[in-house]
Amino acid sequence: MKSRGNIDFRRIAIIGVGLIGGSFALSLKKLGYSGRIIGIGRKKENLLKAKDLGIIDDYFTAALEGVKDADLIVLSLPVGQFQKTLEEIRDNIKEGAIITDVGSVKVNVVKMLEPLMPQGVSFVGGHPIAGKESSGIIDATADLFTGARCVITPTSNTGQGAIEKIANLWRLFGSKVLIMTPEEHDRIFAAVSHMPHVVAYTLVNTLLELNKDILKHSGPSLRDMTRVAMSSPEMWRDICSSNKENIIESLSRLISSLGHIKGLLEKSDWHGLEEEFKSAQKGRQGIGNL
Amino acid sequence: MKSRGNIDFRRIAIIGVGLIGGSFALSLKKLGYSGRIIGIGRKKENLLKAKDLGIIDDYFTAALEGVKDADLIVLSLPVGQFQKTLEEIRDNIKEGAIITDVGSVKVNVVKMLEPLMPQGVSFVGGHPIAGKESSGIIDATADLFTGARCVITPTSNTGQGAIEKIANLWRLFGSKVLIMTPEEHDRIFAAVSHMPHVVAYTLVNTLLELNKDILKHSGPSLRDMTRVAMSSPEMWRDICSSNKENIIESLSRLISSLGHIKGLLEKSDWHGLEEEFKSAQKGRQGIGNL
Repeated sequence: MKSRGNIDFRRIAIIGVGLIGGSFALSLKKLGYSGRIIGIGRKKENLLKAKDLGIIDDYFTAALEGVKDADLIVLSLPVGQFQKTLEEIRDNIKEGAIITDVGSVKVNVVKMLEPLMPQGVSFVGGHPIAGKESSGIIDATADLFTGARCVITPTSNTGQGAIEKIANLWRLFGSKVLIMTPEEHDRIFAAVSHMPHVVAYTLVNTLLELNKDILKHSGPSLRDMTRVAMSSPEMWRDICSSNKENIIESLSRLISSLGHIKGLLEKSDWHGLEEEFKSAQKGRQGIGNL
Repeated sequence: MKSRGNIDFRRIAIIGVGLIGGSFALSLKKLGYSGRIIGIGRKKENLLKAKDLGIIDDYFTAALEGVKDADLIVLSLPVGQFQKTLEEIRDNIKEGAIITDVGSVKVNVVKMLEPLMPQGVSFVGGHPIAGKESSGIIDATADLFTGARCVITPTSNTGQGAIEKIANLWRLFGSKVLIMTPEEHDRIFAAVSHMPHVVAYTLVNTLLELNKDILKHSGPSLRDMTRVAMSSPEMWRDICSSNKENIIESLSRLISSLGHIKGLLEKSDWHGLEEEFKSAQKGRQGIGNL
């Protein structure tokens, strides 16, 4: 039997061949994976491009057909399309297969997908902390996940074997795997990712309302702060709807903190303001060092 | 007479030899400037390092002594120290000299400094739109201003000859020079720079209050959004106090926009939210392209 680079799956179907799905495929190729990688998507020209680039081995526009015989199915399309997709493919999922995802929200995804799993099929929620503001296959790379963290969110229904296989795959990609409950995941990422994305979008709109030409005057600081406002509106709408309560909670806290800062400015409390800036400067140092 | 690379000043004193002051000196050196560059600062070891690195030709810890015979004096220290410094050096400024600055606020600077100018000395306000979160000499580079914009903010008191000399210097550094009134400058930069810096600091503090270890989970998006929270608290306190009204105005608008977005989340108005994200994604494209 041919080696598959320590990977337990003979046939892997990736539904949604964009930045993350494409990088997942390229990470497999980089490991010398010799099983079949099947790309599934709505746009044939995108799939053709992925095949021409050697990212996938074969492709299907019909998901039902594409997932046949797959040992691993990776959902890497916007979270809002998960349920419809699962309902579409469910009758063709092989017994013993594992389904995983790369979505940025976990509680709703798990709640929605677990009941749809056919007998003998495991779902393991996953969220690689990697990405760019772009979402196309053209930006996919074999090292997107190298050195990044990947959160796995099992529930009481998730089998230990399936968890291990998915965790092992991410570790082979060079990621650091963290295990959390879906609830813990959604609380943390509402704060460190979802709410900040919403703020970046809102910051851009606020400036445009002030003066539609003002962004021309931006320097490197604002460019960096608003880079993520280039992200897919559809994807972020889905994330907001799936993690609504946690995002509202952290957004409320930010609004209240900004009100406090505005108060310091109004009172000309420069010492108080400097203390706030100092505490942020100090706190920022530990960022991303897990 | 030796060439000074088209530069009209024989002796240039830079007060504050950090990231911007050091980069100013290196930009002069890169142009083949053969006049004397004098570094002035409080910390002797910093000045010694700058001299050892060939960034400055000579140094003084006493500003009064350092500015003697200078044809150009560059204020590149925190705005809050401008007045005291000017009062300290004023009796030693050569007639015909030009004083300029690189501060991020202009109305207060101009109001404060113009009346302090001795007879025959011109002040030309300047603000290079360049910088990093660091502020030390060690990060100074000869190309920090290349391709960047530099705003010059003359008033009715500023002589045309002095404006031209300063604008010419920035153009030689490779910067694109924009002329604005100090008022226009402060309104624009409150929105595209000062308020966003305040938001970055506040975002970090809000997350730390939520959970002191949460920043460990940050991905690349939050890292970019909060990079500027590493900036000097002292410098940003001074900017806030000097441009208070404009910053309060744009911060109020942001708080109100965030309240609106929170409302869309609470009402589960996903279509409305997606429209906001789309408009930001589209608007973000023109950023920094002046």
